[in-house]
Amino acid sequence: MEAERTLRAEDVSHLAEVAAQLRVDAIRCSTKAGSGHPTSSLSAADLLAVLISRHLRYDWADPDGRANDHLIFSKGHASPLLYAVFKAVGAITDQELVDTYRQFGSRLQGHPTPALPWVDVATGSLGQGLPVGVGIALAGQYLDQLPFHVWVLCGDSETAEGSVWEALDKAGHYGLRNLTAIVDVNRFGQRGETELAWDLDTYRRRVEAFGCQAIVVDGHDLAAIDDALGRARQATGPTVVLARTLKGKGVPDIENQPGWHGKPMKPEAAEQAVEALGGVRQIRVTGPRPELVPPATTTGGPPELPRYDRGAKVATRNAYGDALRALGSRPDVVALDGEVSDSTRADRFAEAYPDRFFEMFISEQQMVAAAVGLQVRGYRPFASTFAAFLSRAYDFIRMAAISRADIALSGSHAGVEIGADGPSQMGLEDLAAMRAIHGSTVLYPSDAVSCVALVAQMVDCKGITYVRTTRGAHPVLYDNDESFPIGGSKQVRGGDDDHVALIGAGVTVHNCLAAADELAGEGINARVIDLYSVKPLDSDRLLDAVRDTGGRLVVVEDHYPQGGLGSAVLESLADLAVPAQVTRLAVRGLPTSGTPTELMDQAGIGVTAIVEATRALLARTR
Amino acid sequence: MEAERTLRAEDVSHLAEVAAQLRVDAIRCSTKAGSGHPTSSLSAADLLAVLISRHLRYDWADPDGRANDHLIFSKGHASPLLYAVFKAVGAITDQELVDTYRQFGSRLQGHPTPALPWVDVATGSLGQGLPVGVGIALAGQYLDQLPFHVWVLCGDSETAEGSVWEALDKAGHYGLRNLTAIVDVNRFGQRGETELAWDLDTYRRRVEAFGCQAIVVDGHDLAAIDDALGRARQATGPTVVLARTLKGKGVPDIENQPGWHGKPMKPEAAEQAVEALGGVRQIRVTGPRPELVPPATTTGGPPELPRYDRGAKVATRNAYGDALRALGSRPDVVALDGEVSDSTRADRFAEAYPDRFFEMFISEQQMVAAAVGLQVRGYRPFASTFAAFLSRAYDFIRMAAISRADIALSGSHAGVEIGADGPSQMGLEDLAAMRAIHGSTVLYPSDAVSCVALVAQMVDCKGITYVRTTRGAHPVLYDNDESFPIGGSKQVRGGDDDHVALIGAGVTVHNCLAAADELAGEGINARVIDLYSVKPLDSDRLLDAVRDTGGRLVVVEDHYPQGGLGSAVLESLADLAVPAQVTRLAVRGLPTSGTPTELMDQAGIGVTAIVEATRALLARTR
Repeated sequence: MEAERTLRAEDVSHLAEVAAQLRVDAIRCSTKAGSGHPTSSLSAADLLAVLISRHLRYDWADPDGRANDHLIFSKGHASPLLYAVFKAVGAITDQELVDTYRQFGSRLQGHPTPALPWVDVATGSLGQGLPVGVGIALAGQYLDQLPFHVWVLCGDSETAEGSVWEALDKAGHYGLRNLTAIVDVNRFGQRGETELAWDLDTYRRRVEAFGCQAIVVDGHDLAAIDDALGRARQATGPTVVLARTLKGKGVPDIENQPGWHGKPMKPEAAEQAVEALGGVRQIRVTGPRPELVPPATTTGGPPELPRYDRGAKVATRNAYGDALRALGSRPDVVALDGEVSDSTRADRFAEAYPDRFFEMFISEQQMVAAAVGLQVRGYRPFASTFAAFLSRAYDFIRMAAISRADIALSGSHAGVEIGADGPSQMGLEDLAAMRAIHGSTVLYPSDAVSCVALVAQMVDCKGITYVRTTRGAHPVLYDNDESFPIGGSKQVRGGDDDHVALIGAGVTVHNCLAAADELAGEGINARVIDLYSVKPLDSDRLLDAVRDTGGRLVVVEDHYPQGGLGSAVLESLADLAVPAQVTRLAVRGLPTSGTPTELMDQAGIGVTAIVEATRALLARTR
Repeated sequence: MEAERTLRAEDVSHLAEVAAQLRVDAIRCSTKAGSGHPTSSLSAADLLAVLISRHLRYDWADPDGRANDHLIFSKGHASPLLYAVFKAVGAITDQELVDTYRQFGSRLQGHPTPALPWVDVATGSLGQGLPVGVGIALAGQYLDQLPFHVWVLCGDSETAEGSVWEALDKAGHYGLRNLTAIVDVNRFGQRGETELAWDLDTYRRRVEAFGCQAIVVDGHDLAAIDDALGRARQATGPTVVLARTLKGKGVPDIENQPGWHGKPMKPEAAEQAVEALGGVRQIRVTGPRPELVPPATTTGGPPELPRYDRGAKVATRNAYGDALRALGSRPDVVALDGEVSDSTRADRFAEAYPDRFFEMFISEQQMVAAAVGLQVRGYRPFASTFAAFLSRAYDFIRMAAISRADIALSGSHAGVEIGADGPSQMGLEDLAAMRAIHGSTVLYPSDAVSCVALVAQMVDCKGITYVRTTRGAHPVLYDNDESFPIGGSKQVRGGDDDHVALIGAGVTVHNCLAAADELAGEGINARVIDLYSVKPLDSDRLLDAVRDTGGRLVVVEDHYPQGGLGSAVLESLADLAVPAQVTRLAVRGLPTSGTPTELMDQAGIGVTAIVEATRALLARTR
């Protein structure tokens, strides 16, 4: 490999031509579109010219090839450069680049998304590409054990995001020798200088303190870049190439000038700049090919799912852990946790399959990002923490949906049911937040049997799948052989002459059942429905309930009253254009500490509140 | 000051007694409660004994005193220690401590909240206390210019959160000499060893690289702690005291043992431990008093709010910036931004009041935390970034609500209306997420005049207030003298014989108006309602619309269909028990790039979609 790293003069000239082409094309497409970030592209053009010509081992005709390197533009706003790269390697045509960039219907969107086969994940929310790269590198080094490398182009501004340091910390902790971050230190953020400007030494000390090799380089010195990238690939641990660059490099009028972030050049100026750069080129870059590797083999039998005795008290978080361990029989199933696996019960998987469990410590953003990276490599990650703390990763979950990522999330300790720990530990807005994620699936089982059945389905779900689990142990309601399709529900109690339907999910199903018992003593027949699939919702079950009860529904949730189970029911009924009288019981005050029963009663979602609300609804509507 | 730092033997003995009392009390209250974190309290007891006895300048009888130091337990699970401190200084009684900890109705909750007057903010989601401390320190050093010091007790596990590094980065950047983090490096997290265990040198290098002074100390050497805290207070920049400690220190059976996180001792073992520690004490600690400082003076006149010409095209984000600048006439108004102030238009405030503007660079978590810290000191912070990127700080916003913080948030670039930048930059789940925050206010103005009126009210709102602004310029709809109370709405068009009500907020109000024009040509009278106050919602206006239109409503929102404006309308109608036929138009697919009109049309929230949905609703219900 040493020989390869010595660049001949003609190699340098060729790389300079490639870099000029990338610059020219970044200018052309953004000027044509009338928007975009040419200056942020120009600063990194030399880095990319060297990377794609000499280091990135990628078969552009086979983007799914399992030995391909991975290239992530964490600074997704530099999409003109990324798409110019795609043109240079022949993946897209010059015409597509220039004519469709940022246009309606184009796959060349303002920020990269996996609408393009060479893009692993969507970027554009800064500080996310590197954490995702950590996940891909974890897969490569620990699971695939393949020689591919993960290259992440970062902006300097985004190093202000703590998630970048979570990523470097994990890269160092796991010794990810297959991961290289290239930081384009062009010194300018959107509205002025960055915090560290060109203080490369501080960057270096931070990177090293976080357990990574740092290589400081002039980001416009092609030979130096080549040497740095070569050393990065050969390193025994993660590397951060800190490249000192000029924003707008190559176009004198805008080079190293503030006030040029996110602004395309005017057509005339762009034309002059292109000419000064030597005009439009059609160089076809042929970089190194990936190594030949054997095809993937999968082994492992069907999971032997846990079974429970009806009536036994089992926490759904325990059932989650049991189900996850059982799913471990599939070699593509991996798990991550945010240092609370003894609470979420992911430790049951970790004990059985330590090689496929990744401890992310208390860094929920990195945990979700690593899950996204692992699924890029075809794994089926389950990531768990308290429901409340998944809110820490909300932007990552949002972006994962845009990345079309298939990941399973488990949020334990939902609602006031957790008791004495108090509101900071209670997930009370998670149903609203998770339902609003594009294409998400939201599940909230009431017992261990349904929890297992749902978790077993999550492994093959598309998109973001979320299961909400409960801290305390509650009775098993179902037989082990019952089915719980996603999008379904269960009628737990009721018959042909029900006066009202009590609708719950999770812990409130149990409260609804107890309330139905009490109401029965008053001659009120209450149907009880377990809406374990909060999204998608079982609208047929709702229609039946409306028809059979004269439209009298009481929806009870251990969640704030906005956007949760009650709202899901209302949305569904509205979309069905079915009138109903829906009473919503939810957590309306700010909870405190107490026992689960005290807190549910205080919140107005306990048995007494359900009974009283039902009486009031019947009094009003009979 | 030097003299004070030399501890006499009797001082050390006294401090040891105080520490023993703190340990004893932490054990007693958690054992009595049957839950809690005694071991995480024991490790930090010596640190706190020295801090409260010799360094924390605090008048416990006057928790609102403006010269008081601030003490934040970022490791909020060590609440037994914090409450033991409160007993030691005489703020609470021994009986309250032992009998009410974690009980229903007690202010001594599982994790600290401002239900206690000596607690500035709720903690319990790790990695948040230090970022909030940065905000308080910013206020002290840059605004109050008072000699108080901010002391933050951190756990070692929580340093895995990127937010801790965002905080240290900002502490270094702003040179916060009034901020000291004390990290209790007891080496054990919840389920095992931390990443760095007792690698104090790596902690030190990280801290120093992030611009802070690091002092490594034996966390059980009282004289060494005293020296470290004294040096921290005298430092010219932020200090991190890295204290090597033993989890469970002082109780041989559990000291330095794994498996003891979050577990109270059994009564008998606790009794033995208390005895071994010398029994129950009632030492009253009298620490240093705060300096005498003059009372706060406020100056500044009423804001001169901007005015706009009806029909002029003005983006609401511009109106936000104009309003914020006008509010700057109040000296308590401060602003923060996440390095996009030229997009959110917070730069208009920054230009006028540079001393009260805090650039947080791209660290949204730290931005929101700093806002929380600033309001602890009585300021009225406005924090802005893209609506999409506020999702990065969702856990901080959630915790801010539990902290009873009064902060204003502005999310710009809402919805597909932004156009070519693509979905990563579009806030499309923010209404759902923000509505679900406890006690929040959610505003979404359609024009510049209403935006100004609402922003002017946010400055005096309680709780978390969120205003969603639009990228593009749209016509001013209202006269400058109209009023827009929070919780209100506007009927923009309509009369006594409306067939249907079109309900929008923000940009969709304009689409509804255009649709109403088109429908008028077909003889359909469409009322148009501007629901600028998404939470609280104007239920009276909805009732009127239902009554007048035969219950025909079309709700249109530039947001995903879950939990947003449509859901807010449905929730309100359900709570009013008013039947209606609500058609919901929202962004149902994953958006791409394009022009605002193309994208709104594609999403089915444009003029044509509204017209067609209205026709269909009328056809179905007439």
